[in-house]
Amino acid sequence: MKIIYSDLHRKRQAKTELYGGELRPPFECPERMDYILAEIDKRKFGEILPPKEFGIDPVLAVHDKAYIEFLERAWSDWKALGYAGEAVPNVWPARRMRSDIVPEHFDARLGYYALAGETSLSEGTWEAAVASKDVALTALAAVMDGERAAFGLCRPPGHHAAMDQFGGYCFFNNAAVVAQQARDQGIERVAILDVDFHHGNGTQQIFYDRADVQFHSIHGDPQHAFPHFLGFAEEKGEGAGEGHNFNYPLPPGTGFAEWRAALSSALDEINRYKPGLLIVSLGVDTFEKDPISFFKLTSGDFVTIGQDIAGLEMPTLFLMEGGYAVEDVGVNTINTVSGFWSSH
Amino acid sequence: MKIIYSDLHRKRQAKTELYGGELRPPFECPERMDYILAEIDKRKFGEILPPKEFGIDPVLAVHDKAYIEFLERAWSDWKALGYAGEAVPNVWPARRMRSDIVPEHFDARLGYYALAGETSLSEGTWEAAVASKDVALTALAAVMDGERAAFGLCRPPGHHAAMDQFGGYCFFNNAAVVAQQARDQGIERVAILDVDFHHGNGTQQIFYDRADVQFHSIHGDPQHAFPHFLGFAEEKGEGAGEGHNFNYPLPPGTGFAEWRAALSSALDEINRYKPGLLIVSLGVDTFEKDPISFFKLTSGDFVTIGQDIAGLEMPTLFLMEGGYAVEDVGVNTINTVSGFWSSH
Repeated sequence: MKIIYSDLHRKRQAKTELYGGELRPPFECPERMDYILAEIDKRKFGEILPPKEFGIDPVLAVHDKAYIEFLERAWSDWKALGYAGEAVPNVWPARRMRSDIVPEHFDARLGYYALAGETSLSEGTWEAAVASKDVALTALAAVMDGERAAFGLCRPPGHHAAMDQFGGYCFFNNAAVVAQQARDQGIERVAILDVDFHHGNGTQQIFYDRADVQFHSIHGDPQHAFPHFLGFAEEKGEGAGEGHNFNYPLPPGTGFAEWRAALSSALDEINRYKPGLLIVSLGVDTFEKDPISFFKLTSGDFVTIGQDIAGLEMPTLFLMEGGYAVEDVGVNTINTVSGFWSSH
Repeated sequence: MKIIYSDLHRKRQAKTELYGGELRPPFECPERMDYILAEIDKRKFGEILPPKEFGIDPVLAVHDKAYIEFLERAWSDWKALGYAGEAVPNVWPARRMRSDIVPEHFDARLGYYALAGETSLSEGTWEAAVASKDVALTALAAVMDGERAAFGLCRPPGHHAAMDQFGGYCFFNNAAVVAQQARDQGIERVAILDVDFHHGNGTQQIFYDRADVQFHSIHGDPQHAFPHFLGFAEEKGEGAGEGHNFNYPLPPGTGFAEWRAALSSALDEINRYKPGLLIVSLGVDTFEKDPISFFKLTSGDFVTIGQDIAGLEMPTLFLMEGGYAVEDVGVNTINTVSGFWSSH
């Protein structure tokens, strides 16, 4: 399997995450990639290739231009204010306040474009986000060129990023960027299967009113899990997208049997939809030892997930999302994609 | 002038404020009261009296019951989660996410009930907030009993607190609580004049659709100042409240001449409204040395403010709001109320 990777992800090395009322080193850290690379090397699995550069247009096809311009300038704008820490939002358009205006002060724009506060903007974030979407787009190109599957080793991840909001460690929605790119290149229907522990709120929102990109997310019940304010079962899409958004929220303590039943439902739906491309938002924070999640999957279960997805027999693009039990991220990730690749 | 004060404000002693991407000691600190008390003592101004207890019903007359229950239990709920810091929201119902549901997890409820992130919930916050509204209600009782004016030395402040949101150092909206109480005791029309540097978003929201409580706020333009997402000039009230909300946003660097012109407009309107009670939300963060504000008032200007307000010749209730140039808060505050009190 072709695996696309760029060392530029290391530019995303925030020092702080707001968690439990403290600023701590982020759960989403560069070392996650090191463990994946080490596991690839250990198993001699696949072929690691660098990304090509695709420019910003594929990003602007799904994201708001003002948001992207905000992100590009955010670090220099923030530093110009003389603040000592990284950029963490502390004010936002709260319920019943105004969201029809983007105030001039950077603090206000920071909160306007944020969907959560755990994710600091830091030096190098922009460069890493640009490289991450290039990784995704290069992996897409491999599948468009006829590969059965490819794996974009994206970092930072993307599925929480909304049309004009960052958060949940995400800045550009890589899955949405490549789904739109595939559509623009002639694929009539694209399915996105999000197996990350957290609801893919950004991906859902971007395609919520569309029938040409179907979204499935299996995730921790938002009553108990981030992002909390989206991802409920009754969110089924709207307008042309009605019936094309599928959420499978699962309760704390969910083990693999229940999780796999949700996967089976999703795969059945995707099979009926007959997309020309399947994009898998691959998070491995469903793992039992993940520090910020509550499912109980074991490392062996990830092999089965890969095998089950392979059963669809569709051109498949894996994109890396979350997974924070750092030392196990490599095994669980490569278990998934090698489980897929070994299946026929 | 009767001045109501309770030492219970010291229970609000948060350790952390999220500011500039760091957690620092809050600008809103107990020492603010010490400087006011010292200035009162130095000038032998007024008579300091303790508050009576009024229970929670006057609070529930303007705040949501579930919000108040959340606040009362927040510290023990937070500690039960085992987090090490104070309670700082890091997820909230962002734009285009759902606000029709209050998720079960405390992290989600914390963000649901927060309007900004600088204000940590801390041990003792509830007790201090309860005492603060009792201070306000006791000061109201003095005016209802015939005093020309009284001063509620409220801490924590209140004017940012909305019907079901805390933030901006505020938990209960003391001005709204006493305005409603005055209405319930038969005052037909109440005017609230908010001279704090920051827009009184909570007070505006609570009375936005009502004609019986008129709101005036002179404040830093929200394009540049907290709370950023409310307080623009075009917000004039709605429904029965149409024409009874007055915002006077002023730009960075505003000096006293421009500020006083806005005050004059507000006083003219209040004079036309002929309220039975005037409540002054008294912040002194309009001061030139305030660390988080951008007006240029000098200490002497506060005397003039008090004199100008006295010109209305209305029963007047002063309630303490903000002011963070700590060592000058006493002089500027007492300049205002003594300027009022010395005028006829």
